Amino acid sequence: MSPMLSDRRNFLKRGAALAGLAVGASATSLPAAAEPALEKVDELHLYGERSHFVTSVRSGSANNPERRIAGEVRDFGLRTPLQDSAGIVTPNSLHYVVSHGYEPPDIDPREHRLLIHGMVDRPLILTMEELQRLPSVSRFHYIECHGNSTTGGLSGPARISPDATAADTHGATSCSQWTGVLLSTLLREVGVQKGATWIVAEGADANKHTKSFPIEKAYEDALVAYAQNGEPVRPDQGYPLRLVLPGWQGIGNVKWLRRVQLVDQPSLGMMEISRYPRLLPDGKSRWFEFEMGPKSVITRPSGGQKLPGPGYFEITGLAWSGGGAIRRVEVSADGGKSWKDAKLHDPIASKSHTRFTSPWEWSGEEAMLQSRCTDDKGVVQPTLAEVAKNWGQTVDYLRQINLITSDMNAIQPWKVNRDGSVKNAIY
Amino acid sequence: MSPMLSDRRNFLKRGAALAGLAVGASATSLPAAAEPALEKVDELHLYGERSHFVTSVRSGSANNPERRIAGEVRDFGLRTPLQDSAGIVTPNSLHYVVSHGYEPPDIDPREHRLLIHGMVDRPLILTMEELQRLPSVSRFHYIECHGNSTTGGLSGPARISPDATAADTHGATSCSQWTGVLLSTLLREVGVQKGATWIVAEGADANKHTKSFPIEKAYEDALVAYAQNGEPVRPDQGYPLRLVLPGWQGIGNVKWLRRVQLVDQPSLGMMEISRYPRLLPDGKSRWFEFEMGPKSVITRPSGGQKLPGPGYFEITGLAWSGGGAIRRVEVSADGGKSWKDAKLHDPIASKSHTRFTSPWEWSGEEAMLQSRCTDDKGVVQPTLAEVAKNWGQTVDYLRQINLITSDMNAIQPWKVNRDGSVKNAIY
Repeated sequence: MSPMLSDRRNFLKRGAALAGLAVGASATSLPAAAEPALEKVDELHLYGERSHFVTSVRSGSANNPERRIAGEVRDFGLRTPLQDSAGIVTPNSLHYVVSHGYEPPDIDPREHRLLIHGMVDRPLILTMEELQRLPSVSRFHYIECHGNSTTGGLSGPARISPDATAADTHGATSCSQWTGVLLSTLLREVGVQKGATWIVAEGADANKHTKSFPIEKAYEDALVAYAQNGEPVRPDQGYPLRLVLPGWQGIGNVKWLRRVQLVDQPSLGMMEISRYPRLLPDGKSRWFEFEMGPKSVITRPSGGQKLPGPGYFEITGLAWSGGGAIRRVEVSADGGKSWKDAKLHDPIASKSHTRFTSPWEWSGEEAMLQSRCTDDKGVVQPTLAEVAKNWGQTVDYLRQINLITSDMNAIQPWKVNRDGSVKNAIY
Repeated sequence: MSPMLSDRRNFLKRGAALAGLAVGASATSLPAAAEPALEKVDELHLYGERSHFVTSVRSGSANNPERRIAGEVRDFGLRTPLQDSAGIVTPNSLHYVVSHGYEPPDIDPREHRLLIHGMVDRPLILTMEELQRLPSVSRFHYIECHGNSTTGGLSGPARISPDATAADTHGATSCSQWTGVLLSTLLREVGVQKGATWIVAEGADANKHTKSFPIEKAYEDALVAYAQNGEPVRPDQGYPLRLVLPGWQGIGNVKWLRRVQLVDQPSLGMMEISRYPRLLPDGKSRWFEFEMGPKSVITRPSGGQKLPGPGYFEITGLAWSGGGAIRRVEVSADGGKSWKDAKLHDPIASKSHTRFTSPWEWSGEEAMLQSRCTDDKGVVQPTLAEVAKNWGQTVDYLRQINLITSDMNAIQPWKVNRDGSVKNAIY
């Protein structure tokens, strides 16, 4: 039984909730009423598929094979093919994946529970049906691996290869309309005790992936999501429940969420102590970074594509920031000598991908295409040299440390050669 | 060869465009550069799938089997399971389908062309690659069969069955972020001649489905779409190219678009003369209706669902209008005696589904749930009695003529019984 009190503020009344409400994400489709004699309808049409001419897929690998040899779980990573993107919605089938453990758990939503406990007045266990009775929000947010656009993340050496595609350089970010319950709504239900300052979130995967974050994020915009782009969250993304921490490092967006604990200090989960702290030049480690900086990438034309010849092209791309909404995107076709404001397309939502476009007339000469964005806070996406300077280092040093940094949001240059080929120019 | 002149205003320069730009919707995913040794990645993960516990599908049938017996093409219709929806994005696999002809054509995008001709100065043939070089927009719009929420459309007798689900009553509307080129952009390219007042659009299906509409719609917001929710338009929706006429009857949103002709009078396509005109009580026919009125439906709780017992529930649903954006949604739980403003969730876009939510405490007694919306123009969704009155008829008469009318946007009542069962109450 759910330990729910009959406090009038509680949304779910004692005894009323566990019987199972046959609605929502996990519900089987209901049979049509008084249907005319049903002709055989091809299964493909009941849940449609794309054209066989469309072959865009995620790219990636199990990127730490040596860990498998040691008998440990292996990492699993897949990048979104941003070079084929349109608008701001990432198709669920193409959402990027980083998984510390190979296969997603196969969770029966009828058995799944979310426990909220720790420094609270009324610990709570919620079924999926109960969660879906609560006040919901639907919001566009991106989720991004903090290793995105570094050589240390999903991209590996591909990040700095001249042949890198937009998937290789920036494919560990994806954008969805997430539907679920604000974590702040749940915290009001359980009653947070004085002194609770941190939250530990835990997944139901074999690893019990655990991540802690300051309680302020719960009051700001953290979300317990059961749906993504109009359908239940996909298994690779945490079915049936994912924590979404808008604009913060992907690692904290705990999949297969089953436990939320209120505590008075950060936890020291496996990923927090062994994999994600960042070694600084002085030998110290930087822990507990969260917010991702403003970033943008031109998705077309982009690395690996080929222009058929001089003439008009639309430059199009995506911009996003953990600091809020995108306020401005500028585009340069001459290596940064001149910049022109790009058009931003609605919706321009906070901590969401924003689509930008800009007209371009290609003369047939060599060109260098770049975009830079500015967010709500007025923070401007830096050049690679500025990133290095912010670190008190040189660009060469950044290469040496494999560009592993959450600040690695440098402007992405694509070089257009005379033959129309487009190459990564950050190497 | 494309008949394109070298007018400076033309985006695509002569001879430059046909070589094929290896980008965009039809492009094969590019191999990753300098990838670490690729471990076997399950095919499922390259283009992910949903959990096997999620079984929500489109419902429907070939709804005119007698036409097949006569050797003609048959109609094909599938409804979106709105009762399982979340947010405003309809998953592409669940987009509603009305097809006058059984299977979508299997179009190779490399072979597909769009011809723009008729009363224009410079007729134009465009490849898909050329289209994707042009200035693009990405916009949330719904498409709705004008027979939606009538007994004459996809729903058939299910519309007025007590057991109808939200799919049965309103499932012939779906919402996507469409990406493509504004028709007005193309018209500037070809140069519209004086006297051209109508446009005929034709599809590449076996039927050559043809529909005409006033040229004003092209200047307002008509769109030639090659992508839908971030990936190429699905075959069921017109791959590789669909005309989108935001807020207008679905029939005009021509799939597999291959021809746009500028003319000086409406065309009389098969659907326009034989299937879609509406017979009025005086025996005359009403032709060339376009804009859909404001409509809303509560998707949860809705027909066929069951509440486990008294307590708090969130009422959630969708509202949309051909008249523009949704300005207001009100919800009643007492059969229309009292109304309360629902919360509208961003994005609230013009001619798009808008998600609304409203808190509700169910006492356990019989209840009648209804929503009514108001659009940008101030038009309020009517009751069934008001719809009848607008037609100078009775509600019984509306039933008799099978509620077939584009004005059939009456408020949808769902009755909640004491046992928690939810029933269609419009019958």
